[in-house]
Amino acid sequence: MQENHRRRRAIQAAEALGADALLVTHAADVRYLSGFTGSSGAVAICLSKGSGVRAALFTDGRYRTQARVETEGLRVVVQKGSPAVLAAEWMAASGARRCAFDSGRTTVAQLGAWRAALPGKLRRSFFLPTEGLVATLRETKDADEIVRLRRAAALGCRLFARLLEHISAGATEMQVAAQLEFAARLAGAEAMSFETIVASSKRSALPHGRATTAKLPRRGFVTLDFGVLLDGYCSDMTRTVYLGKASQRERDVYHSVLEAQQAAVAAVAPGVSCGDVDEAARSVLRKAKLGSSFTHSTGHGVGLEIHEGPRVAAGLKQLLQPGMVVTVEPGVYLPGEFGVRIEDMVLVTAKGREVLTSASPKAWIEL
Amino acid sequence: MQENHRRRRAIQAAEALGADALLVTHAADVRYLSGFTGSSGAVAICLSKGSGVRAALFTDGRYRTQARVETEGLRVVVQKGSPAVLAAEWMAASGARRCAFDSGRTTVAQLGAWRAALPGKLRRSFFLPTEGLVATLRETKDADEIVRLRRAAALGCRLFARLLEHISAGATEMQVAAQLEFAARLAGAEAMSFETIVASSKRSALPHGRATTAKLPRRGFVTLDFGVLLDGYCSDMTRTVYLGKASQRERDVYHSVLEAQQAAVAAVAPGVSCGDVDEAARSVLRKAKLGSSFTHSTGHGVGLEIHEGPRVAAGLKQLLQPGMVVTVEPGVYLPGEFGVRIEDMVLVTAKGREVLTSASPKAWIEL
Repeated sequence: MQENHRRRRAIQAAEALGADALLVTHAADVRYLSGFTGSSGAVAICLSKGSGVRAALFTDGRYRTQARVETEGLRVVVQKGSPAVLAAEWMAASGARRCAFDSGRTTVAQLGAWRAALPGKLRRSFFLPTEGLVATLRETKDADEIVRLRRAAALGCRLFARLLEHISAGATEMQVAAQLEFAARLAGAEAMSFETIVASSKRSALPHGRATTAKLPRRGFVTLDFGVLLDGYCSDMTRTVYLGKASQRERDVYHSVLEAQQAAVAAVAPGVSCGDVDEAARSVLRKAKLGSSFTHSTGHGVGLEIHEGPRVAAGLKQLLQPGMVVTVEPGVYLPGEFGVRIEDMVLVTAKGREVLTSASPKAWIEL
Repeated sequence: MQENHRRRRAIQAAEALGADALLVTHAADVRYLSGFTGSSGAVAICLSKGSGVRAALFTDGRYRTQARVETEGLRVVVQKGSPAVLAAEWMAASGARRCAFDSGRTTVAQLGAWRAALPGKLRRSFFLPTEGLVATLRETKDADEIVRLRRAAALGCRLFARLLEHISAGATEMQVAAQLEFAARLAGAEAMSFETIVASSKRSALPHGRATTAKLPRRGFVTLDFGVLLDGYCSDMTRTVYLGKASQRERDVYHSVLEAQQAAVAAVAPGVSCGDVDEAARSVLRKAKLGSSFTHSTGHGVGLEIHEGPRVAAGLKQLLQPGMVVTVEPGVYLPGEFGVRIEDMVLVTAKGREVLTSASPKAWIEL
C-alpha cells in the first residue's frame, strides 16, 4: 500500500502550493500513485473537509479488469470519454476549487478540453499550473522501488557478463545489440529501457552511437550502454571494452575516465550537492588535460523512467538524499579517434552509497 | 528533396489558417519536414514577402554533424538553449507576426517559455493554436514513404514465416516474442514499432495481451500482433494461429473474423469513407452474431508513427485518398474463452488498394 502513502504526500505537496486537488495524467506518475500500468489513465486526488483524502483512477473499458487488479485503496472509474476530463468533472463535483496539474506534462489542447468540461464559474480559476510535483517525489525511492531497481541493475550485469562472448572482430554492432536484447527478453525484461548503444572504433567517440551495421574492428574500443526494463523499473549501465591490443594512449585515456568515474562514485553521499559529484569527475579529467572532451553531464536519476531527477551536472545545488538513485557516467570523446565512457547506477544510502551495478567489473577488459 | 515540398505544403496549410509562420517540435513531424532524426529539434518555416518560404532547423551541439548530413534545403542552426525558443525568436526577428503551432503536441510549460522569449508586443498575439496540421499532411504518403512502408511490411511477413517454427506447446509467450524481436534486429530493424503482443489460449481474448511468461497450450489460439521499425517507418500486422486440433466453434469464429477482415479490405478504395470500411467488417460479424464481441475500431493509419490518421472507426466520414496506408484489423474477443484478430496493412491506390502484408497467408493455420 505504498501508493496510498505516495498519494498522501502528493496531495500535501499540492496543498502547499494552494491547491485542494491534484490531477495526474503522465503514465509514469499515474503508475507511481496508483499501481496502474495501462496506457490511458488519470489519477485524481482531493482533500475534502473532514473526510480527508479521496482518490480515484479513471480509465477506459479496455482496462476494466487490469485497473482493479493493479490498484488498491482508491476508487476505479471505468467510463467512456477522456479519463482526465472525467476526473476533472469528478473533482469539481466533489467540491474541489483549485486543482494542481503538471504544466510540463499537459498539452495546451488537453488543458483547453479539461477547462471546457467545467462549470463556467470554475473555468478560469480551477487549474493551477505546477511543474514536476510528482516527479520530485519520485526522485527519492522507497523500499519497494529500491528492491526493483537493484534487481534490474543486477540483470544488466548478468547480461553484460554473457554478452562478452559475442563481442569479437567482424560481428556487427547490431548483432551485438540483438544478442543482448534477446537475452534480456528471455530473462524476463519487458523491454530495453532505451535504444541500445553499441559504438565501436571511431564511433565510440559519439556519446549516443546507436548500434549500426558497422563491424567491430580487430583493434579498437567498443562502448556498450544499455538498460533493461524489469517489473517497471529501468537499469542503466555502460562499459567500454577493447578488442585487440591497445596503445598506451588508449589505456591512459581509459584509466583517466575510470579514475574520474570512481572519484564521482566516491563523492556520492547524502547532503552532497549534485554539482559536487559532477565536479569530482570533471576535476580528474581536467588534470589529465581531458576536461574539454567530457562534453556532457555526469549523470541523472533512474526509476520508472530512464531519465528522472536529480540531474548530476556542473553547478547544480540540489543535495543528494538517501533513496535517490543516480547514474555516474563520465566519458571522454576524441572525434575521429575514439571514446570511453563508464557508468554505474548508484543508490544514495543513509551513510554513503551502494553501487547497484557493482557485479560488472570496470577494470580494463581486453578481448 | 521531398522535404522541401512538404514544408511548402505545411506553410500553405498554416497560411490558410491566418498564420505567416509555423513552429514544429514533435519529433515525427520534425523528421517529416526536415529529414532530421535526432531527439531534440525544432523546425521553423516563415513566409516572407517577396523571398518566399524560409525554413530552419534548430538543434543542439550533440547533433551538429548529423543535422547537416540528414537535411537539405534549409538552414541548420546549432546553438545552446531550447531549440523551439530559438526558433520562435528567429521567426519574430525575421518579421513573422502570427505563428501556427500544434496545441496537441505542445505543453502548457513549453508555450509559456516560447512566449516569454518574445518581445512584449508579440507575446499575446504571436502563437496561433492549431491541431494536427502536419499530422494531416502525413496521412497521405508520398512515393518515398510508400517504398519504405512496403519494405517494413515485407520484413514483417518474412519474420512471421520464420517465427512459425518457434511456436509450439510449452514455449512461453515471451520466448516467442524474444525470437521475433531477435530476428527483426538481425534483419536490420531499428526496433519494434510497438510492444509485441503474443496472447495465447484464454489470453487471446485480451486485445492488448503483451507477451508474458505464460506457456503456449497444447490446444488453443495464439494471437501475434507485431511490427518493425525499419528506416524510420512502422509495420503492423496480426495473425492468429491454432495449436493442436480446434473445435468447430473455434474454426467458425476464425472464419467469421477472416470474412469480416476480407470484406473490409475489399471496401478500401479512394473516396470511400473510413466509417464504411469499418462497417464492412462490423456487418459481417453482426450477421454471425459476433458483433458485440468486436470491441474496438477497425484500423488506423501507419507511417513514421504506429498510430496515425486516418482512424478507421464506426461513423467516421473522412474519405480515403490515394497514398493513405491504414491497418484493417477486426477481432472477436470472448472473455474466458478465446479471441481472434487478423490484420493487414493496406495502401489506398488510385483505383483501389494494395495489401502490403499480402505475403503472409491468412488462411487457417494449425500447428
